Amino acid sequence: MTLKFVKGESDILELAKGRAAFVLVIGNTKTANIEGITVAGANPELIKYTPPADAELLYHGKCLSIDGVPATPDGKPTPALITYTALRLTSIPLFVVNSGLMVPPKIPYIDLNAPVGENIAESRAMDREKVEEVLERAKIVGRQLSKLSDVLIIGESIPAGTTTAAAVLKALGLNAAVSSSMPENPVELKRKVVERAVERVESNDPIEVLSAVGDPVMVGVAGISLGSEKPVILAGGTQMVAIANLIARMGEVEAVIATTKYVASDATADLSLSPFPVIASDPMLGKSQYPGLRAYEEGFVKEGVGAGGMTSVAYARGITPEKFLEEVEKDYEKIVL
Amino acid sequence: MTLKFVKGESDILELAKGRAAFVLVIGNTKTANIEGITVAGANPELIKYTPPADAELLYHGKCLSIDGVPATPDGKPTPALITYTALRLTSIPLFVVNSGLMVPPKIPYIDLNAPVGENIAESRAMDREKVEEVLERAKIVGRQLSKLSDVLIIGESIPAGTTTAAAVLKALGLNAAVSSSMPENPVELKRKVVERAVERVESNDPIEVLSAVGDPVMVGVAGISLGSEKPVILAGGTQMVAIANLIARMGEVEAVIATTKYVASDATADLSLSPFPVIASDPMLGKSQYPGLRAYEEGFVKEGVGAGGMTSVAYARGITPEKFLEEVEKDYEKIVL
Repeated sequence: MTLKFVKGESDILELAKGRAAFVLVIGNTKTANIEGITVAGANPELIKYTPPADAELLYHGKCLSIDGVPATPDGKPTPALITYTALRLTSIPLFVVNSGLMVPPKIPYIDLNAPVGENIAESRAMDREKVEEVLERAKIVGRQLSKLSDVLIIGESIPAGTTTAAAVLKALGLNAAVSSSMPENPVELKRKVVERAVERVESNDPIEVLSAVGDPVMVGVAGISLGSEKPVILAGGTQMVAIANLIARMGEVEAVIATTKYVASDATADLSLSPFPVIASDPMLGKSQYPGLRAYEEGFVKEGVGAGGMTSVAYARGITPEKFLEEVEKDYEKIVL
Repeated sequence: MTLKFVKGESDILELAKGRAAFVLVIGNTKTANIEGITVAGANPELIKYTPPADAELLYHGKCLSIDGVPATPDGKPTPALITYTALRLTSIPLFVVNSGLMVPPKIPYIDLNAPVGENIAESRAMDREKVEEVLERAKIVGRQLSKLSDVLIIGESIPAGTTTAAAVLKALGLNAAVSSSMPENPVELKRKVVERAVERVESNDPIEVLSAVGDPVMVGVAGISLGSEKPVILAGGTQMVAIANLIARMGEVEAVIATTKYVASDATADLSLSPFPVIASDPMLGKSQYPGLRAYEEGFVKEGVGAGGMTSVAYARGITPEKFLEEVEKDYEKIVL
């Protein structure tokens, strides 16, 4: 099965056949500075450029802020490649939202004036008042874009985002294992960081949880979803599960989570904790002739930059999995090789 | 007549009955520092806050960056009031584009990373390479928004924008008189500034003209129009005439200029120079019970922040002029009094 519900059911994906907008929310948390916590960048200095470089790739088919494309230290390329192909094939418009970046991208972006997230191992993530301000700004963005669209598809790029997601879930009382861009998920390291982080949480109020152990991308995605007058597709894995649990406690949102089968088949990624239905798509990378793409099937990278959600949307619009893989490989040849 | 073509004819306004987006492009030029050149602000220090304050007013019904609302030194209020009413009545979504602001607004905005314009009396307005970069970014914004819309309505707010507009028209070989937000247009002062500015223009190439004597808002509006895959409504007066002449030399755009009858009936505002059809609407402010609104009929302010274009769109959507005035007065009472 190339597209299947792993939890519940929803018609929202059908709406993506109409007017859909893809909103990529990008930012940074200093939690990514913890050694070994993320591989979303070839080296520590490059990690902060991963979100802007992902966004640039989606518009231009190449990065402007770095040479090459974001990759793991051993060269597995960013999932932005998959999203790039899906956007190209569907002609769905892209809006990039800067929600707490260290370095702005060299493309137009919507600025929420959000803070960079602090390292949750060491201190609270964000000032509560600031979180509330950014939420209100993000709601405006969601409202305006949704007036033009039948559905909003929301993706993310933030290194160490699965760690803040684990902390949010734990702070909400949901004991989740959480996925990672590494096949050998650094579970023990994450667990220690999360344990220390949640000690600072004073209540399970969603704004308190966001401020104490979240990250700015969560604030942006939550606000855009809450402001939207149309249903939303949360395009991502366990990070979207954490955000979905915050949203469900903050207001009425009609949503579905759409991720890759690589996350869905990862035992450490507990999608059952989603308050919304969850759909998983198979981008067929296991059948690729290129080892860099096959790595996804082997448990590397797995998801990000809305790759799973945009694959689902491409399939819903009638692009066959075989055609999709062919086009992903063409883009891989052009962009990476 | 409350809505009439003053040049040519066009069906574009009909499209605004469908999915329309209003894009407000805001920025600054140091040309506004020339004493007596603009009244778009109660005093020189406040002038730079006029564009962000206009944009904030449209989202929140109040300004966040200044107390009260932008006004002339003797208290005539910003045309953003009219646009606010039109957006409220039509529910058309608003997107604010920062194209060269001195001070960013306290709302979400699309950032083009444009430079503030230099004072064209003293030096070239903008670096040519920067102009080309901003144009490309603005094209991306126009393309993405137009994919979701049937028509883009583009307004502007930039103090001293009529002076840079006069310089652009002259540099293009079009000898226009140009309108102003003052009833006694400081024609002689503007003429001197324009004369000195156009001496720096090396050719009538549109990018050269923009770089030498334009302003960053022109670059943003031109780029968004050129990038749009749908027709555009240039919502403004003589500034839009200048931009229209640049656009017409840069690519294929289907456009109409929509302004107020206050600009159309101003002998110093030569709308006949537009390469596109021009429609003028009457927001009926001459019939207002409030002197601050009647002042528009008497030749003050006249236009700005897309007021004329959004009035046209409100009328095209079936809102009667009487109802429109009633609602503008309600907002005036709430926001200004």
